[in-house]
Amino acid sequence: MMEREVMARCRALAEWSEEPGFTTRTFLSEPMHAVHATLRSWMEQAGMQVRVDSVGNLRGIYAGARPDAPRLYIGSHLDTVPRAGAFDGVLGVVMGVALVERIRGRRFPFSLEVVGFSEEEGVRFGIPFIGSRAFVGEPLPDPGIAEAIRGFGLDPASIGDARFAKGALGYLEFHIEQGPVLESLNLPVAVVEAIAGQSRCEVVFEGQANHAGTTPMHLRRDALAGAAEWIGVAEREARATPGLVATVGRIELQPGASNAVPGLVRMSLDLRHSEDAVRHTAVNRLLGCAREIAARRGLCLQSEPRLDQPAVRMNAALTGRLERAVEASGYSLHRMTSGAGHDAMIVAGAMPAAMLFLRTPGGISHQPEETVWEEDVRAGLAVGLQFLEELEASLA
Amino acid sequence: MMEREVMARCRALAEWSEEPGFTTRTFLSEPMHAVHATLRSWMEQAGMQVRVDSVGNLRGIYAGARPDAPRLYIGSHLDTVPRAGAFDGVLGVVMGVALVERIRGRRFPFSLEVVGFSEEEGVRFGIPFIGSRAFVGEPLPDPGIAEAIRGFGLDPASIGDARFAKGALGYLEFHIEQGPVLESLNLPVAVVEAIAGQSRCEVVFEGQANHAGTTPMHLRRDALAGAAEWIGVAEREARATPGLVATVGRIELQPGASNAVPGLVRMSLDLRHSEDAVRHTAVNRLLGCAREIAARRGLCLQSEPRLDQPAVRMNAALTGRLERAVEASGYSLHRMTSGAGHDAMIVAGAMPAAMLFLRTPGGISHQPEETVWEEDVRAGLAVGLQFLEELEASLA
Repeated sequence: MMEREVMARCRALAEWSEEPGFTTRTFLSEPMHAVHATLRSWMEQAGMQVRVDSVGNLRGIYAGARPDAPRLYIGSHLDTVPRAGAFDGVLGVVMGVALVERIRGRRFPFSLEVVGFSEEEGVRFGIPFIGSRAFVGEPLPDPGIAEAIRGFGLDPASIGDARFAKGALGYLEFHIEQGPVLESLNLPVAVVEAIAGQSRCEVVFEGQANHAGTTPMHLRRDALAGAAEWIGVAEREARATPGLVATVGRIELQPGASNAVPGLVRMSLDLRHSEDAVRHTAVNRLLGCAREIAARRGLCLQSEPRLDQPAVRMNAALTGRLERAVEASGYSLHRMTSGAGHDAMIVAGAMPAAMLFLRTPGGISHQPEETVWEEDVRAGLAVGLQFLEELEASLA
Repeated sequence: MMEREVMARCRALAEWSEEPGFTTRTFLSEPMHAVHATLRSWMEQAGMQVRVDSVGNLRGIYAGARPDAPRLYIGSHLDTVPRAGAFDGVLGVVMGVALVERIRGRRFPFSLEVVGFSEEEGVRFGIPFIGSRAFVGEPLPDPGIAEAIRGFGLDPASIGDARFAKGALGYLEFHIEQGPVLESLNLPVAVVEAIAGQSRCEVVFEGQANHAGTTPMHLRRDALAGAAEWIGVAEREARATPGLVATVGRIELQPGASNAVPGLVRMSLDLRHSEDAVRHTAVNRLLGCAREIAARRGLCLQSEPRLDQPAVRMNAALTGRLERAVEASGYSLHRMTSGAGHDAMIVAGAMPAAMLFLRTPGGISHQPEETVWEEDVRAGLAVGLQFLEELEASLA
């Protein structure tokens, strides 16, 4: 069975790791050679022409009916977070190869290129999307990256060879959802409409550290009490705004002792929404509430923006085809926003992009327990095949 | 001026430290030898007989009118926290010596013994009150302490010589308030009615760690959101209960990343009140609220008691004399609960104990900036002298 083979291949690739017993494979680390070699053999078996471009993306082309046929790209990434699962990224590449195997022998009015991006997670250099940025023609963002490319046996001076070919039809990415939504809806797949924009800021409440025994409540300026009030406000704001997520994920206290009233609290705020205006309004409202809370409690407030990344909409026409493919394959259509960034977010700036999510059991990702259900891989492959047929029909 | 000399002496003793540039003097550490030698010379100048007992308490006796006269103890501790101020503890000992200097030549119907306890802060062994525990006849709580005593040149087998003499009239301790209450009331001194009882517990909310982008609000089980709600409840409960203080001073998140919904929050709760029943009721109410919050949010709650230390009331009769001494000295009488533990708390189990707080500028203690105002030391000495006169009159 095709879907079983897809899963077995993902698990086989997960064995190639920097750390025995776990799957840890950062940008152009040593085990990436073996991943390339293994995928290359599968791609060549499927009748594809394979190369590794100068940013380390693995690329396999399945020719179209004519040499000048436009090209559909199917891709995702091959790097992982530390101690990762076997499916985040890799699944999208392996499914691309599986689709080519399925259509083997047929020639479409477009060529297909499956791309395994070398870097998406941002672990090695703290900079994500190195592979897809080069694919859309951006220069390398950091000199250390060129060194890593040379260390892998590639020539960073030839980085232009990573750029996509003219005449691109579009980009399709299969990826696990990495969240609980599809499971909660009991659906195998969803069509991604947009990748959420994201604001991050650092919020600091400063009061006065005091002895927990000797300072009566009315003489305290407790930074944590103020922060706790504000965390509640952020949660209510997000719950009241459809599609908004707000997270305080990091909190540090000073002095941070059980017998000391906290004098300072430093927190992260992460806010995401598919509409930038909604997100900006929410950030402003929450910082306004923080100021009000601080003033009422005699605290000082500092906030510092750390990220303001716009939302990226997927291409309407290509997404429409993907939606029709979902329905034609017999599945319920669910549209959703991706709260996490993906290579499709970068590629969407250069060509029409569309994205299909596969259900993630337990919403668990970035952990060894991450998995995907065989029947959902079957659904994803069916939708992918139908999508190719739709595209073929549209070019006929 | 006497009060200026008291302050100069405290600052001189603060120079003896384990760490250059700071005052750090733990139980029977090397600089305690110099502190003993310096205080011994001042005590002997004041006509006192001086010894170091076998737990390292420095003790100077000023004889009464008759050899069998009952004894009043005046004391506090000579050890410090790391990077301490110059007055916490030491001030009470130096003021005791200053009082003896004031009355020099007079003989009272009671003898006076000034005690500089060797250990109160609990820094070296994580066990506080080593000096005063031996003074009331308790055995050493840890074998390591006997080793430290030998290292200081004393014999732990003779620990019985630390016990107070029969015929004790009582114990008086001068100590800085270490809080902001007297400053807020614009008063130099206060009479301590009780040392608050204290509950400490560890409270853990456990939910589900998730991706901050991919997990919609309605599918989250955010441990920090639950904890924040509960921190607000604890603050309101304490504000609504006169004399109660509640502090969450430590909070740790897992995973603790800005892009992760917190899956687990571990917090400390510190609750203090002068009435044990009020404190126990508050602990139960807060844990009940925590359970309710956890249940409503789909979180698991664990709580573990870490300390349940009863309140200790000062002796009513001796405290009454101290109150009259405050008023006879021309100061407004303010009674208060000590939120911090003191040697008087231990000694009160063995003899009548009373305690006088001196205003602490800024409420700042356990820091190099800790200080005390000269006029407040003058007030404390005047009250102390008046207290001795009151006691003399009562024995006439």
